[in-house]
Amino acid sequence: MNDTRDPGAPESLVEANEVEAVDAAGVISPAFVAQMVGAVGDGDKPFLWRTAKDLHPADLADLLEQLPPEAFRKAIHLLGKHLPAEAVAELSDSARLEALRELTDAAVTAMIGHLDSDDASFLLNDLEDDRRERILNRVSATDRAAIESALAFDEESAGRLMQRAFVAAPVFWTVGQAIDHMRSVPEDDLPETFFEIYIVDPAFRLQGSVPVSRLLRHGRDRPLSEIMREIPVHVRPEMDQEEVAYIFRQYNLASAPVVDDAGRLTGMITIDDVVDVIREEAEEDILALSGVSEAGVNQSVFSAVKARMPWLLLNLVTAFLGSLLVSFFAPVLEAVVALAFLMPVVAGLGGNAGSQSLAVAVRAIAERDLEGQLARRAIRREALTALVNGAMIASAAALIVLAWFQDTRLSLLVLVAMSATFMWAGLAGILAPLTLKRLGQDPAVASSVFVLTTIDLMGFFVFLGLASLTLL
Amino acid sequence: MNDTRDPGAPESLVEANEVEAVDAAGVISPAFVAQMVGAVGDGDKPFLWRTAKDLHPADLADLLEQLPPEAFRKAIHLLGKHLPAEAVAELSDSARLEALRELTDAAVTAMIGHLDSDDASFLLNDLEDDRRERILNRVSATDRAAIESALAFDEESAGRLMQRAFVAAPVFWTVGQAIDHMRSVPEDDLPETFFEIYIVDPAFRLQGSVPVSRLLRHGRDRPLSEIMREIPVHVRPEMDQEEVAYIFRQYNLASAPVVDDAGRLTGMITIDDVVDVIREEAEEDILALSGVSEAGVNQSVFSAVKARMPWLLLNLVTAFLGSLLVSFFAPVLEAVVALAFLMPVVAGLGGNAGSQSLAVAVRAIAERDLEGQLARRAIRREALTALVNGAMIASAAALIVLAWFQDTRLSLLVLVAMSATFMWAGLAGILAPLTLKRLGQDPAVASSVFVLTTIDLMGFFVFLGLASLTLL
Repeated sequence: MNDTRDPGAPESLVEANEVEAVDAAGVISPAFVAQMVGAVGDGDKPFLWRTAKDLHPADLADLLEQLPPEAFRKAIHLLGKHLPAEAVAELSDSARLEALRELTDAAVTAMIGHLDSDDASFLLNDLEDDRRERILNRVSATDRAAIESALAFDEESAGRLMQRAFVAAPVFWTVGQAIDHMRSVPEDDLPETFFEIYIVDPAFRLQGSVPVSRLLRHGRDRPLSEIMREIPVHVRPEMDQEEVAYIFRQYNLASAPVVDDAGRLTGMITIDDVVDVIREEAEEDILALSGVSEAGVNQSVFSAVKARMPWLLLNLVTAFLGSLLVSFFAPVLEAVVALAFLMPVVAGLGGNAGSQSLAVAVRAIAERDLEGQLARRAIRREALTALVNGAMIASAAALIVLAWFQDTRLSLLVLVAMSATFMWAGLAGILAPLTLKRLGQDPAVASSVFVLTTIDLMGFFVFLGLASLTLL
Repeated sequence: MNDTRDPGAPESLVEANEVEAVDAAGVISPAFVAQMVGAVGDGDKPFLWRTAKDLHPADLADLLEQLPPEAFRKAIHLLGKHLPAEAVAELSDSARLEALRELTDAAVTAMIGHLDSDDASFLLNDLEDDRRERILNRVSATDRAAIESALAFDEESAGRLMQRAFVAAPVFWTVGQAIDHMRSVPEDDLPETFFEIYIVDPAFRLQGSVPVSRLLRHGRDRPLSEIMREIPVHVRPEMDQEEVAYIFRQYNLASAPVVDDAGRLTGMITIDDVVDVIREEAEEDILALSGVSEAGVNQSVFSAVKARMPWLLLNLVTAFLGSLLVSFFAPVLEAVVALAFLMPVVAGLGGNAGSQSLAVAVRAIAERDLEGQLARRAIRREALTALVNGAMIASAAALIVLAWFQDTRLSLLVLVAMSATFMWAGLAGILAPLTLKRLGQDPAVASSVFVLTTIDLMGFFVFLGLASLTLL
């Protein structure tokens, strides 16, 4: 809501309740959550409706998510059609599903009518097939067609991100004609906000774009063709959302037109949806590197278990592979028990070095910083870094071992085994994700298993193998 | 460049060279890099100038970065003042530094004049103090003032992200007056593109904003006060950039006004800068979780070593702490060598479980999904997840051990030790980052060391301790 330090802003109803809902940094106040819980308990519909009306939809969504599950469901029920569609779209995945379950078909139908086609299809995508069908039967024919064609595209494609509402003008129009057109069209037929208009030829093929701010700056008689800009790269509906995000970042776009195979304008993608994609993709990388297949913090214990179990099972197998390898060296371990103390040091530090080069490589691939020549340079750099780090850390470890056990051979053994493990860690950390990328796989997920397992095995094998050769 | 499938677009000079610089997805072609290397070698200035003019600045930056270091420097030198300022701003950190070193003061001064104040101060921030002073002496007084006041704000603050160029209109103006004003102002005094205009009172205090697309849609006589929107949350110049990014995401903004303590409008932040912040912050989290203190793929071996060494040294210490702990249990290890095979399984899987809950918690904190009530719920969920995952994985491991060693006591030992380690891993993985966050520290960096070290120690201690009690 308003910043209270702004003396000129009108006071909202929520503030009139004496508890401020949102602080200056946009964070929901705990006191307001408590007040909301009370109002839900009392079934105080007027309070809820007023809150829903006064809060920004994104803040309302945050507020609702902070309610205990029981109160959340009751709040959705009490709000009913007073719940803004935009707030539902802003809810986290699990809360949105829960809310949609609580709402009547009539309420969902009304929401669909209020949303742009990308958000509408996003909401409907969550519903069971027969309920979606029921609701689609109740919306207008044009909305239905837009939603159905959006749902026909793959998830995570540009076709899902784009909205059907945009402003296009023929290439032979002037600035004045374009402005008059926008003033005359009914408000519902235009997107709520837009940053540029698209210039098309008579066959609706995209010719260029004119930022709205540029349109304003020129006289009414200026032909659009004179002030339009070229579109640097064309987004197609089937393009992966990650590629769309790259194009937005690369060219600092606020919105982009989507064109079909014939070059005809079919939709528009806006930056707010792309920001969500950028966050999602970064989040996927972080989680994949740590072995979580999907996240969402409001998820249930069941889904948290499901998201983490595959990785743990896989690691159970690789960990026992490691212990099987170690068991082959039982004689040397029985002879020199100090090897059992040091074994985890060799493998563990190698694993750390591997995680480091993996994280750098995965991020660089996501940022497209390892294209062409740059990949070769990165490999050379990782190898050198591993060599330097390995030499330094292995020397330090060897000195500690020498001081501790007063045993030169053991100390040298640690030196050699750790240097070799670091070298392997550095190379595997860059080569595995690059190779997976080249094979069209996600570099984050599979690399992590492969790299960390082979480092463990490598560390154990070199360390205990050399020990068998020299200490027995 | 143009998409070649677009039949209506004019052919550019670069394409006339028969090698296409950028493919349909915005990726620089290797053939064009090779051609560029050749042109640099021949000192073919006309080719370079044409390329610099025809390519989008972001693509030009990518192309330059792909050149070998020697060719990069020569290309910058040959381009001189034909190198667009925007391309320099798009270069990676190390390449930008290198380029600025290669350029004359005159060339840098000319660039500064072309850039918005946020980008200009970004470039100048990289220079040594005396060179910056020399260049500031040569730019116009207004540019100098804007740049110096930007540089006075902390790095990573809103004050650094904001530009001084924006459009403000008095609250008593009409739509028509605002449009006429924008048409009459010299082009250089307006930001290159903008998405909204700000409405101020006579003391320049911010009253609201009107999206440009909304301005266009209303008749010339409509008062701005009737169509302006409230600003949900005010961005202040001293605000941390992470908080700015949160506000942009939360309210789906394309731009936001910045106001000072008195509520006066002082600048504007646009989404393209915020997108960079979002990427940087996500990147910092990924790297911090993997123990890299800063990245950049074009960095030198020296800086890569420097970025990774602190973590490795710290881990060297913690790893030897672990081996010291293990050494206390030498008697039981000597008696039952199988413990040495299984020790890494217990600690390793616990470490994986800890990384998982840590990654989920760090992301959730960054997304502000663990505020208030939600934190308590997340702790409960992590504890339950650890319990379930621990029980399942420990049981599986116990069965494998039973089958392998035919030893019930050893199998039970693994069951108990792994369950306990998982429990600890789950709790530490969520409590450590939450605690650090509450203490105002970065949850990603320090948690990782603490969590993984204590899991190792916990795993070794419980496993070998119980073994000493039961197996000796």
